[in-house]
Amino acid sequence: MLTIDGLQYSNWSRAIFEQMREGGVDAVHATLVYHENCRETLLRFGEWQRRFEEHSDLIMPVFEASDIELARETNRVGIFFGAQNCSPIEDDIDLVAIMRRLGLLIMQLTYNNQSLLACGCYEAEDSGITRFGRQAIREMNRVGMLIDMSHSAERSTLEAIELSERPVIISHANPASFHPAKRNKSDTVLRAIAESGGILGFSVYPFHLRNGPDCTLDEFCGMVADTAELMGIDHIGMGTDLCQAQPESVLTWMRNGRWTKAMDYGEGSQSNAGWPSPLAWFSDNRHFPNIVEGLRQKGFNHEEIDKIMGRNWLKQLTDGTRPAVNAAF
Amino acid sequence: MLTIDGLQYSNWSRAIFEQMREGGVDAVHATLVYHENCRETLLRFGEWQRRFEEHSDLIMPVFEASDIELARETNRVGIFFGAQNCSPIEDDIDLVAIMRRLGLLIMQLTYNNQSLLACGCYEAEDSGITRFGRQAIREMNRVGMLIDMSHSAERSTLEAIELSERPVIISHANPASFHPAKRNKSDTVLRAIAESGGILGFSVYPFHLRNGPDCTLDEFCGMVADTAELMGIDHIGMGTDLCQAQPESVLTWMRNGRWTKAMDYGEGSQSNAGWPSPLAWFSDNRHFPNIVEGLRQKGFNHEEIDKIMGRNWLKQLTDGTRPAVNAAF
Repeated sequence: MLTIDGLQYSNWSRAIFEQMREGGVDAVHATLVYHENCRETLLRFGEWQRRFEEHSDLIMPVFEASDIELARETNRVGIFFGAQNCSPIEDDIDLVAIMRRLGLLIMQLTYNNQSLLACGCYEAEDSGITRFGRQAIREMNRVGMLIDMSHSAERSTLEAIELSERPVIISHANPASFHPAKRNKSDTVLRAIAESGGILGFSVYPFHLRNGPDCTLDEFCGMVADTAELMGIDHIGMGTDLCQAQPESVLTWMRNGRWTKAMDYGEGSQSNAGWPSPLAWFSDNRHFPNIVEGLRQKGFNHEEIDKIMGRNWLKQLTDGTRPAVNAAF
Repeated sequence: MLTIDGLQYSNWSRAIFEQMREGGVDAVHATLVYHENCRETLLRFGEWQRRFEEHSDLIMPVFEASDIELARETNRVGIFFGAQNCSPIEDDIDLVAIMRRLGLLIMQLTYNNQSLLACGCYEAEDSGITRFGRQAIREMNRVGMLIDMSHSAERSTLEAIELSERPVIISHANPASFHPAKRNKSDTVLRAIAESGGILGFSVYPFHLRNGPDCTLDEFCGMVADTAELMGIDHIGMGTDLCQAQPESVLTWMRNGRWTKAMDYGEGSQSNAGWPSPLAWFSDNRHFPNIVEGLRQKGFNHEEIDKIMGRNWLKQLTDGTRPAVNAAF
């Protein structure tokens, strides 16, 4: 069984890396930044370099998909990076290739708000992919950086899929048909993602789940089964959105960045401002086997579970992060 | 014959890349920046990405020494990057690995002035390698970034050699015994460079030569012969310091950066402020065969000339830019 998680943003520590190994995790898409600009993104890369040095027995960086195999062979967890927003490239198209070279394999075009590239899922109106956005999509295609529309609005997402010559992904969200939330995705979007060759990573973040923290494993696995029907077994995976051991200040940073003086509560509210309570069956990286068991009970066979837990992500990374011919950077 | 030039900073163009091929050049150490900070250095990398895209039939980037072999096989010129100053890393030790990952294979610790790391060759007093400098040397050793002391002062250079666990280089300068100039190096320094396993790249920049622009090829090759005696045949190479087609504004930027309001003339003077006249026997990349011929006439055999023209540089890059074990970045 290969296990690849399509999104986490934890308060990284040796304890968490050990839990990853304990949970049989082979690779994790770690959010590198939310709103950090170019220089600040390099600070985050710097912090990760130190983690790779200090915990070289447990983790290693993934610059291309084959590094995940190396991680597996050496009993370590491969860490691959994504940005939840396009802030690392600022207004500079050349920074796409530079960030890719540094190991940014995935970038969201937007995070909730309008960005320079596209519209986020919390804006009142979505005018689609911008002029700069079209160039960025082309450049991301060229260098092999996955386009992630997890926090984007519907029209922008469909346009990105149309414009991109390579698959588009949603690393962490759920079907809106399972739980209506601004962050969850319509069947139209999910079908288009699958048709593009992309993937949906299922989130276990309670705000994305029916009944929130009380969502049962059976309900979750039922959602997976329904989505497998809709998108096909090759286009679904995990994207837990696990934010372990993070203080509330980090939640505030995710939601407010530097763009508002008034408090924005994102998926929460003034009366429910903090982190949601965790699920009983998935609160940290040791709990991936619970999901495997849940899927088994829902009737998935071994090969299907292997795809959902990791193989489909490996294929996305293998195909999607390969630079185009002659892309030297 | 392998030809590798240990330093150029030209006004890059297709015409110049074509001249490189015409002159049989296999690889060139291109100066990426003089005084640019981190973010500005990324702008320069971005400009080079565009050149690599646009002229992919003529040039390719070198991230490791084996890329030079690939360049040779595909009849292209490998471009490897160096910074003439430590400005790209600002005050952040983590930027060493980040810049190495982006392809900065060489960094000078100083450019004429005192830097955060060491003292430059134009300062009145040299207090040696700084606290940050010691850390930077250790980190450069770890990630495989060559330490270049071309524009450094004597004490700092000797201390860097002492502190570094890997060879230290002088990419472009000449022996002070041939021509006394602040930028040229004492026999003490040259011997220490050779003992460290490093290399001296011979400059054809007229300010570094006896009789300036009138220096003859025979005089130049005599200097090479004398230095081969001093340092050994394995520790010398080319480092032309060719600055082709650059406007005077670039010379002003090299000399003045942002650090002075009063004009600094560097190696020139108020009455001789501009670029020096070029040599008759070496004014662009097509003239490397002249040096080969000059060395032959001076009595060097084929193997020795091959070492001077490129093999020694290839060895420096092969050994010196290999990251230390477990250096993941």
